[in-house]
Amino acid sequence: VSGATVHPTAIVDPRAVLEEGVTIGPLTVVHGEARIGARSRIGSHCVIGEGDRERTVIGAGAVIRSHSVIYAGSTFGRDLETGHHAVLRECLDVGRGLRVGTASDLQGSSSIGHFVRIHSNVFVAKRTTIEDFVWIFPKVMIADDPHPPSDACTHGPTIRRAAVIGAAATVLARLDIGRASLVAAAALVTADVPEEAVVRGMPARVTGSTRDVRCRHGALVRPYPWWEQFDRGYPPEVMRTSSGPVYEEDGE
Amino acid sequence: VSGATVHPTAIVDPRAVLEEGVTIGPLTVVHGEARIGARSRIGSHCVIGEGDRERTVIGAGAVIRSHSVIYAGSTFGRDLETGHHAVLRECLDVGRGLRVGTASDLQGSSSIGHFVRIHSNVFVAKRTTIEDFVWIFPKVMIADDPHPPSDACTHGPTIRRAAVIGAAATVLARLDIGRASLVAAAALVTADVPEEAVVRGMPARVTGSTRDVRCRHGALVRPYPWWEQFDRGYPPEVMRTSSGPVYEEDGE
Amino acid sequence: VSGATVHPTAIVDPRAVLEEGVTIGPLTVVHGEARIGARSRIGSHCVIGEGDRERTVIGAGAVIRSHSVIYAGSTFGRDLETGHHAVLRECLDVGRGLRVGTASDLQGSSSIGHFVRIHSNVFVAKRTTIEDFVWIFPKVMIADDPHPPSDACTHGPTIRRAAVIGAAATVLARLDIGRASLVAAAALVTADVPEEAVVRGMPARVTGSTRDVRCRHGALVRPYPWWEQFDRGYPPEVMRTSSGPVYEEDGE
Repeated sequence: VSGATVHPTAIVDPRAVLEEGVTIGPLTVVHGEARIGARSRIGSHCVIGEGDRERTVIGAGAVIRSHSVIYAGSTFGRDLETGHHAVLRECLDVGRGLRVGTASDLQGSSSIGHFVRIHSNVFVAKRTTIEDFVWIFPKVMIADDPHPPSDACTHGPTIRRAAVIGAAATVLARLDIGRASLVAAAALVTADVPEEAVVRGMPARVTGSTRDVRCRHGALVRPYPWWEQFDRGYPPEVMRTSSGPVYEEDGE
Repeated sequence: VSGATVHPTAIVDPRAVLEEGVTIGPLTVVHGEARIGARSRIGSHCVIGEGDRERTVIGAGAVIRSHSVIYAGSTFGRDLETGHHAVLRECLDVGRGLRVGTASDLQGSSSIGHFVRIHSNVFVAKRTTIEDFVWIFPKVMIADDPHPPSDACTHGPTIRRAAVIGAAATVLARLDIGRASLVAAAALVTADVPEEAVVRGMPARVTGSTRDVRCRHGALVRPYPWWEQFDRGYPPEVMRTSSGPVYEEDGE
Repeated sequence: VSGATVHPTAIVDPRAVLEEGVTIGPLTVVHGEARIGARSRIGSHCVIGEGDRERTVIGAGAVIRSHSVIYAGSTFGRDLETGHHAVLRECLDVGRGLRVGTASDLQGSSSIGHFVRIHSNVFVAKRTTIEDFVWIFPKVMIADDPHPPSDACTHGPTIRRAAVIGAAATVLARLDIGRASLVAAAALVTADVPEEAVVRGMPARVTGSTRDVRCRHGALVRPYPWWEQFDRGYPPEVMRTSSGPVYEEDGE
């Protein structure tokens, strides 16, 4: 615990490992299963290492905002960032640079790539696969049960690299959401989505290619592929390719 | 308070009644109006007995996860379980075995039967009736006002025994959702739903009987009636009947 | 800090200004940038003045319920009221009498008028304008990006005086929602809404005037204009006019 700054009202299990430069805010509880990477900042009123499973590993440079709950048994790459009241359950295998917004609820047992951006109040069911550079906007529902309630067939969808799920959309269980596709706001996705397709409505139908989307408002004529006009804090080692950004983690 | 384990940082009103084997987690506040049943486990950062109304009664064996808020003036049967950040308001009359997921918000003044399962981020408006063995999946909205804002006509719907409300569906005020019916994901329910009917879309229409639903994925051919292929921790005294599970509480 | 009642477990920066009669609940953190108006009551487990920006100003008579987070750099008129787990971000300019429900998330940089009522679990994107006497019901999504992800064109909508946004509706970026209009529950609003219009569906279409809405349930025959049959705690200085309630703040 040497080199960490722990607020006197925080409750940190002596078995927890806090690397150099970690700060733990007031009234936060850190259980013994947690290992928190260098320079991470944990806000107030959080719970880190909830549950009694194996170790939680939070990579270096994390920013965890107040009232968030991170379970034991998940592994996060560096630069994790959460909003307030986020809940990240067990058995998540997460790459670098995940951002999860306020009040989002990741149910666990999912695989999440690098630089995934999940906004506020998103629900991600168990056993969902989210590839690198995916964007999920507020209030999205990712489901895992094709005929609830059941156990036999539950499995979350697979959301491919650089796909975009618009606000308040619902994506049903077991689907494949294609690379760089766009699900429009409030759409109900009931079938697989092809690469670079735009889908809209309830149930969602393919209405064209993202490359044909035009902006009515001005600054951008062609908003897609989004990575040609936009990034949000990607480091220089992210490469742009015609099929989307690519990140290869070094051996650190 | 004898026989209870209270974390030294918890703040428990001396008038609160904690039965044998209760545990109260760190940084939790228990107000004087609360009575917490035997062996219940209250997590960290919770508030139990919020408000200044009459007594809260939480039955034996409850599991209340961190950051949840339970108001005074509600009564819960045994085996209540909540996720994190759940809010359960006043004047709820709840049977045995309710589970309420993370960030769900029960507005109060509702009647909830036995073994009801409410997943994450569900909103239940006031004066809703939820019968035994109902399932409500994440992000469901249960409304109470037919022409908002108003007071004169507000009343929540009635959701009949063993009905299933799919994820992100919206159920409008004052409706009757029939026994063992199925509301599909993201549907907007604007009319009563017959027994065992499946409804889908916006506005939702009856598209068939649950008994005609087939599974495309394999393990289960006929997923409904759901109670013929599935339970989730029901105790042996729950009886299966052709119209759904039945539970008669003994006189305890 | 004289004249305030601070729970001994609260953590209040000595630079914070607490006016006469303020109460601060247990386990709440108040940062130095906060100024809290007379007679305000802050519940337990809150964070006031989060972030390191300029001053937060909360007007007199506020009621902030447990686990809420209010950022530095926002200004609230008197009689602010929040539910539990609400998050109010920076650079909000808010009039008198705002009510924000449980788990709602105001992203900041927005202008909110007087007597706005935002229910539970509402998301309001940045740079949204909400005029006086607007009602926003639970689970509404207010978006700001016409082609996500982007920066160039993001801007929240403008919701005009006395408009009503029904539960679980989605309002897209940059739209103009007309005075006293009504967005039906679960509608997806993709175009401007005229004054006093009713819009429904996905995408939402104008289906008539609010003045033609009839109640099927009884007590009220004509529910709209809502201000002719309803108020919720407006003070006597609110004037009713044929175009809706009007409030002129005095020079206090």
